[in-house]
Amino acid sequence: MHSTDVTVAGLGAMGAALAQALVDAGHSVTVWNRTPGRIPALTSREVPDIDRAVAASPLTITCLTTYDATLTALEPAAGAFTGRTLITLNSGTPAGAREMAAWAAEHGADFLDGAVKNVPDAVGEPGTLLYYSGEKAVFDRHVELLRALGGDTVFLGTDVDLAALYESAVGGTLLPALLGFFQGAALVTARGLPAASLVPYTVKWLEMIGAVLPSLAEHIDTGDYSRPASSLGLFYEGIAHDHELARESGVDFSWNAPMHDLLTRAVEQGHREDSIAVLTELLR
Amino acid sequence: MHSTDVTVAGLGAMGAALAQALVDAGHSVTVWNRTPGRIPALTSREVPDIDRAVAASPLTITCLTTYDATLTALEPAAGAFTGRTLITLNSGTPAGAREMAAWAAEHGADFLDGAVKNVPDAVGEPGTLLYYSGEKAVFDRHVELLRALGGDTVFLGTDVDLAALYESAVGGTLLPALLGFFQGAALVTARGLPAASLVPYTVKWLEMIGAVLPSLAEHIDTGDYSRPASSLGLFYEGIAHDHELARESGVDFSWNAPMHDLLTRAVEQGHREDSIAVLTELLR
Repeated sequence: MHSTDVTVAGLGAMGAALAQALVDAGHSVTVWNRTPGRIPALTSREVPDIDRAVAASPLTITCLTTYDATLTALEPAAGAFTGRTLITLNSGTPAGAREMAAWAAEHGADFLDGAVKNVPDAVGEPGTLLYYSGEKAVFDRHVELLRALGGDTVFLGTDVDLAALYESAVGGTLLPALLGFFQGAALVTARGLPAASLVPYTVKWLEMIGAVLPSLAEHIDTGDYSRPASSLGLFYEGIAHDHELARESGVDFSWNAPMHDLLTRAVEQGHREDSIAVLTELLR
Repeated sequence: MHSTDVTVAGLGAMGAALAQALVDAGHSVTVWNRTPGRIPALTSREVPDIDRAVAASPLTITCLTTYDATLTALEPAAGAFTGRTLITLNSGTPAGAREMAAWAAEHGADFLDGAVKNVPDAVGEPGTLLYYSGEKAVFDRHVELLRALGGDTVFLGTDVDLAALYESAVGGTLLPALLGFFQGAALVTARGLPAASLVPYTVKWLEMIGAVLPSLAEHIDTGDYSRPASSLGLFYEGIAHDHELARESGVDFSWNAPMHDLLTRAVEQGHREDSIAVLTELLR
């Protein structure tokens, strides 16, 4: 009855990489895209109608931008989902994931929500992380196929919105970390040095940041901020350094202002000698 | 004439770790701190007067908060520096480093400026990065001793302010990356889940960020932002997600506002399909 193993709906850079990884793993794949004609390099079958695309496989994986976009795209295929499985891989909030799950349940589909925690180029690699939440039995049924998308395939739990929660919680580091790098790139290139010269040091710096997270998480989880490896005060004293550097270099540091305000508020609240992780309390 | 191999001035967490690493490597060490009595665990000789501390060794390494603090601390020892070497390891701007170098030259001292790119606990480890700038001959004379502070000891170049430049350029990623993590911690802990559960995923995420930096640096260095792995538009569309998430979770996302403004300005300037690295142009 099913003509392919899996259907992939949404062929942006990430969706195309997912479809390709499934083809590479030997699966027969049906693909659908709102604008047809974006088939990945290797063989897969493109179907222009979403309902026929969904009907072609026991499992449909969507990779559209948002839950709203996914709901809009899938609506014409609602009737085709009965007895099939839907897995959504997109950005969104926990509430969006719960809404998506309710839609799937209403139409008789098994459902998992998930997230790809890497770039399209890394899809299919053994170390690439994807995590999922929803019914454990559904995850177990499809886990072997899902491992083709990334070797580090994790089940977060049965609360269906956990993947969206962690996706949001982890993803919030990306833009600020990149802007920190771009600010540094603006500083070194203003000096006639290549941004590339900054990369190895920043990579090592990001490793250092990763290495201090366990102790910062412990401060947050215990609520004991009194034994910091480096105090909030050290960061607070860095504000003057940032102002000086901005003046000296002409680089725009103004995006740091609310971070400086958080540090200042924390000092005013008596947290100067506390762990920098106490900022979590101010964000709550 | 010299009674010890090296003098360490400034015994905060980092200075104490540096002194300890030198003692561990078998060097005889004199230490000085503005407030005496903070000798590291193993044997070193504490001297209460900075001029006698400097006179005790051919090399003095300072680890004070800023160049201003260093100049203030060292002023009484100015006369003792003739024919000796001064290495400063602190935060500061390139202009601060040049001023420091001028002070050292005025008092007949050889000079290097440097930075420790890690936490105190990592001092002395084979992978720990420290970089230096200034006279190459001075670096070469002391490099063996400096390797005791961290195995990844790098000479950046003969412009004396390069270490401060890279220190500033690399260091700007720390606070924003940590705030991204704290925001995520606020999200998961609001859900009753431990911040620790976020750590392995964030560590992997930071690795992913490190892995995309070479291509982003290439966009910056070539000025060609037209072939992005992920477009600025993807980040721009994430703004709505952040607003929704803030509303849903009650977590304060307001520190992201200037980052959102930068994305919006970039889109208004026609960079929606360009590499996210084009933000560097807006910071210049």
